[in-house]
Amino acid sequence: MTDTDRGRPGLRDRKKRRTRAALSEAALRLVAERGLDQVTVEEISEAVEVSARTFFNYFASKDEALLGDPAAEAELLTRRILAAPPDLSAFDAVRSAFDDVVAAIEADREVWRLRLTVIAANPSLLPRLVSGNAATERLLVAAVAQRLGLDPCHGHPMLVTTVAGAVFRTALMRWAEEPAPAPLRELVAEAFTAVAAGLPDPRATR
Amino acid sequence: MTDTDRGRPGLRDRKKRRTRAALSEAALRLVAERGLDQVTVEEISEAVEVSARTFFNYFASKDEALLGDPAAEAELLTRRILAAPPDLSAFDAVRSAFDDVVAAIEADREVWRLRLTVIAANPSLLPRLVSGNAATERLLVAAVAQRLGLDPCHGHPMLVTTVAGAVFRTALMRWAEEPAPAPLRELVAEAFTAVAAGLPDPRATR
Repeated sequence: MTDTDRGRPGLRDRKKRRTRAALSEAALRLVAERGLDQVTVEEISEAVEVSARTFFNYFASKDEALLGDPAAEAELLTRRILAAPPDLSAFDAVRSAFDDVVAAIEADREVWRLRLTVIAANPSLLPRLVSGNAATERLLVAAVAQRLGLDPCHGHPMLVTTVAGAVFRTALMRWAEEPAPAPLRELVAEAFTAVAAGLPDPRATR
Repeated sequence: MTDTDRGRPGLRDRKKRRTRAALSEAALRLVAERGLDQVTVEEISEAVEVSARTFFNYFASKDEALLGDPAAEAELLTRRILAAPPDLSAFDAVRSAFDDVVAAIEADREVWRLRLTVIAANPSLLPRLVSGNAATERLLVAAVAQRLGLDPCHGHPMLVTTVAGAVFRTALMRWAEEPAPAPLRELVAEAFTAVAAGLPDPRATR
C-alpha cells in the first residue's frame, strides 16, 4: 500500500488503475450481455483473473463497478472550477472544468457507450447513480459559490451547476445514442455555446 | 363512466379528481410519517374511506399514488408549447408552458412539499420517477421540434427541453427546501431569466 516506493514512482498506482478499469469493463460487458441479475462478482473477477477479494479492494459492490468513479470525477471538476481563470464567469468556469472529463470519456469511448447502455437497460442502478450525481452536485455548488463569494444557499451556484450538468448529460446522451456521432468535445462545446447565448432558436439552415 | 351525462357537465369528473387527490395526499402523509414499506394500499384507502378496489381505479400501485400525474402534466406542457405565440423562441415557449404547472403546484403547496420530501427520503421511488420524466421529456422534445420544424434528432429541441427541465426542477427544489420561500412562480421566473441571459454572474450586490 506504499505508493512512495522510491525509484518507481506511480508504478503501483498505474497498475491499480489498470486493474480497476479492467474490472469495470468486464462488469459492463458481462452485464450488457446477460443482464444485471445474471452476473456475479465472482464471474467479473474471474474474467480479469483476480480473486473476488481483490474485486472488493476496488469496489464495494457490483453496481459500483458499473458506474465509474463519480467521486474522482467530482474532485477533478471541483479543482478545475476553483482554478479556472478569474475573468471567466462561473458558468464558463464550470464549462471549462468539463474539458478533462470529456477527454477522459473520449479516451475510453467504448466503455462509456457500454456504460450508458447498461444504465438505460437497468433502472435499478438509478438510485445509486442519482445519489452519486447529487453528491457531485453539492460539491460543485460549493465550488461555484466559493468562486463567486456567495453563500451556497444563494440560488445562482445551484442553477449554474444544474444547468451545466443538464448540458453535459444531453451532449453525452447524443454522443452515446448516435451510431456515428461527432466527437464528444464538439457536441459539448456546441451545447454550452447555445446555452451561453441564451438558447436562441437555431437558424433555419440548421 | 359516462362523463357526458346531460345536465351535470363535469360533476362526475370533479368528484373523481377530488378522490384521486385525496388518495395521493393520504398516501404521502402516511409514507412521510411511517416510511414507504410501512404503508399498505389498504391503509391509504381506509384513510379516505374508499375500498382498495377503488384505489386501483385511480392508481396501479402505491408508488404511482405518491408521484403525482406526470402523464397529465406532460400533456398540458405539450399543448402549451405548441399553442405559445409564434414569435416566442422555443425556449421561451417551454418557459411559458410551465406557468400552468407552477400555478397547479402553488395551489397545492403542502402536498407538493410533502411529495418532494417523500421522494428525497425514498430513493426506491427514483426508477419510476426517472422513467416518468424521460417519457415527459420525449413528448416535450417532439413538441419543440414540431414548433421549430426540426427533426427531433436535431440536438436543439433536446437541449431546450433538458435545460428548461433543470431550471424548473432547481427552482422547485429551492422552493421545497427553504422554510419560508418566495412564491414558486418568482423563483421559476428568476431562474429562467438568468438562463435566457446566458447565466452571467450575479451582481456583487446579490
